[in-house]
Amino acid sequence: MNRTVAAVIAWLFVIATAQADDPLPSWNDGPAKQAILNFVGRATSKDSESFVPPAERIAVFDNDGTLWCEQPMYVQAAFTFDRIHTLAAQHPEWKTTQPFKSVLEADHRALADLGERGLAELVMTTHASMTTAEFEQIVLDWIKTARHPKFKRPYTELVYQPMLEVINLLQAKGFKTYIVSGGGIEFMRPWTSKVYNIPPEQVIGSSIKTKYEMRPTGPVLMRLPEINFIDDKGGKPVGIGQFIGRPPLAAFGNSTGDQQMLEWTQVTPGAHLMMLVHHDDAEREYAYGKDSIIGTFSDELMAEVRKRKWTVISMRRDWKKIFAFQP
Amino acid sequence: MNRTVAAVIAWLFVIATAQADDPLPSWNDGPAKQAILNFVGRATSKDSESFVPPAERIAVFDNDGTLWCEQPMYVQAAFTFDRIHTLAAQHPEWKTTQPFKSVLEADHRALADLGERGLAELVMTTHASMTTAEFEQIVLDWIKTARHPKFKRPYTELVYQPMLEVINLLQAKGFKTYIVSGGGIEFMRPWTSKVYNIPPEQVIGSSIKTKYEMRPTGPVLMRLPEINFIDDKGGKPVGIGQFIGRPPLAAFGNSTGDQQMLEWTQVTPGAHLMMLVHHDDAEREYAYGKDSIIGTFSDELMAEVRKRKWTVISMRRDWKKIFAFQP
Repeated sequence: MNRTVAAVIAWLFVIATAQADDPLPSWNDGPAKQAILNFVGRATSKDSESFVPPAERIAVFDNDGTLWCEQPMYVQAAFTFDRIHTLAAQHPEWKTTQPFKSVLEADHRALADLGERGLAELVMTTHASMTTAEFEQIVLDWIKTARHPKFKRPYTELVYQPMLEVINLLQAKGFKTYIVSGGGIEFMRPWTSKVYNIPPEQVIGSSIKTKYEMRPTGPVLMRLPEINFIDDKGGKPVGIGQFIGRPPLAAFGNSTGDQQMLEWTQVTPGAHLMMLVHHDDAEREYAYGKDSIIGTFSDELMAEVRKRKWTVISMRRDWKKIFAFQP
Repeated sequence: MNRTVAAVIAWLFVIATAQADDPLPSWNDGPAKQAILNFVGRATSKDSESFVPPAERIAVFDNDGTLWCEQPMYVQAAFTFDRIHTLAAQHPEWKTTQPFKSVLEADHRALADLGERGLAELVMTTHASMTTAEFEQIVLDWIKTARHPKFKRPYTELVYQPMLEVINLLQAKGFKTYIVSGGGIEFMRPWTSKVYNIPPEQVIGSSIKTKYEMRPTGPVLMRLPEINFIDDKGGKPVGIGQFIGRPPLAAFGNSTGDQQMLEWTQVTPGAHLMMLVHHDDAEREYAYGKDSIIGTFSDELMAEVRKRKWTVISMRRDWKKIFAFQP
């Protein structure tokens, strides 16, 4: 082996090692990646002034638009509409009754005008009046077969690879990672262990009420057509208080619904990390912000980012790839 | 060293080893201790038919009367009465106003007649209209100084040593241990890490509503004088569903308020463990059961125990010692 070959091998080895050592290989170097690595170092290095004992290391992640794709509509909305189509066979009257008629006719204008009451009726029809075990099975069956309209892939493949690396890094550093989502808690729990390595008990979300019932076949929890909790905006710190009982050290969101969660994360003295994913990549995913109904990133939120020195993640600039299946 | 000395040393060594190997040294041998050890073996031995992966190992413990002493009144009731006395200095009108008058005069007959509305007023006066951080500090200050009327010790020393050993054994075997109590979630969380090695996020209980507020000094969660959730009876499986999202494998309780939690634990096929502490030790703690208002162990509950083959723990027979400070 001559000197040149040896040098090339040594160089390849250095590259391979550097890649193996990088806990965030899908992130481009830049302020976002650096903010994450700095935070992890400050919170977990024994000799750091901001060292936090493992038991207190809590990180929270919004789900829709932060961990997985929320366009062209929330995945749970797609689930709701699909369920209406499936259940329509047993409800011939829906062809002429609102709000079901608009869903069956895919009348987007009428759907947009449904209002809170119509949407609530769609949600309760598809999410309530069954046991928790029955609902779990319906979600599992649906998520296995449903496909995203643009990417033609299961929704569970439309999770952001760079964010999976952040979850993985934080877990490796002793953090308890939670989802704190406006979405339904029992719509997420059936699949979050497999997809995010986040167990059901670390998923916080919106919920409907349930009721314990003893049946001849054994006890069940019945899902009632009644809102229990909306885990959005000021509800996110409330949900965190209820489920976790202390503010997190790190929070990741992407929209105005996450502002209060990031504020609440910042109350902790010492090491903390507040980040917002900005969807500015129309080519590889979607580009949207202040004018989007879904995942609104308002001017007010951007002003808050500057005022409180939070970090914005640019999908276009900060992420080498968005989904694992992309080259 | 002659043979006899060698034999004695060997014998002492065997005893010492046996004791060191016993994960439940405060338990007398008997069906209760055996039920725990059998369950742990079945659930966690790799070659067991009922092996459960670590991520699914959940165990739940009622608090009052199961992990710590609940007589002559719930600890949280003692806290409430003490707070009324403390706050009375700023409320001279309480001397002549119910329900406060009865508390200040220690008029037990009047207190018993207060009814739900009077009790709710006492609880909200002492538990609401402050931030979560303020309430946490009040609880911590109180629990450090308050003493049990019979044992003259801090309430946090009146935890059952045999139950601490069960928590410790289950944790060592990969179980996530939860408290599921009718008591206030934020009355327990400030001290459960230290006393039970159970972190705040694994404490489920009754709660009042909270509201997120941004103040000039930063965000707070305000405690509102409004019930959010009562974690008792059928509420316990509901709380478990809400916080954990799957039934536990093991449940420990002591009263009719725990029946549904134990039923819900039993829905899991394979290894499970349902146990109820029976307070039958007037000498070392208290003896009470079906006629007690606090921690009622009704005849119906005892019938359910037999029907469903649950295990009753007799404090008198099964526990070598009750509290760590006892000989």
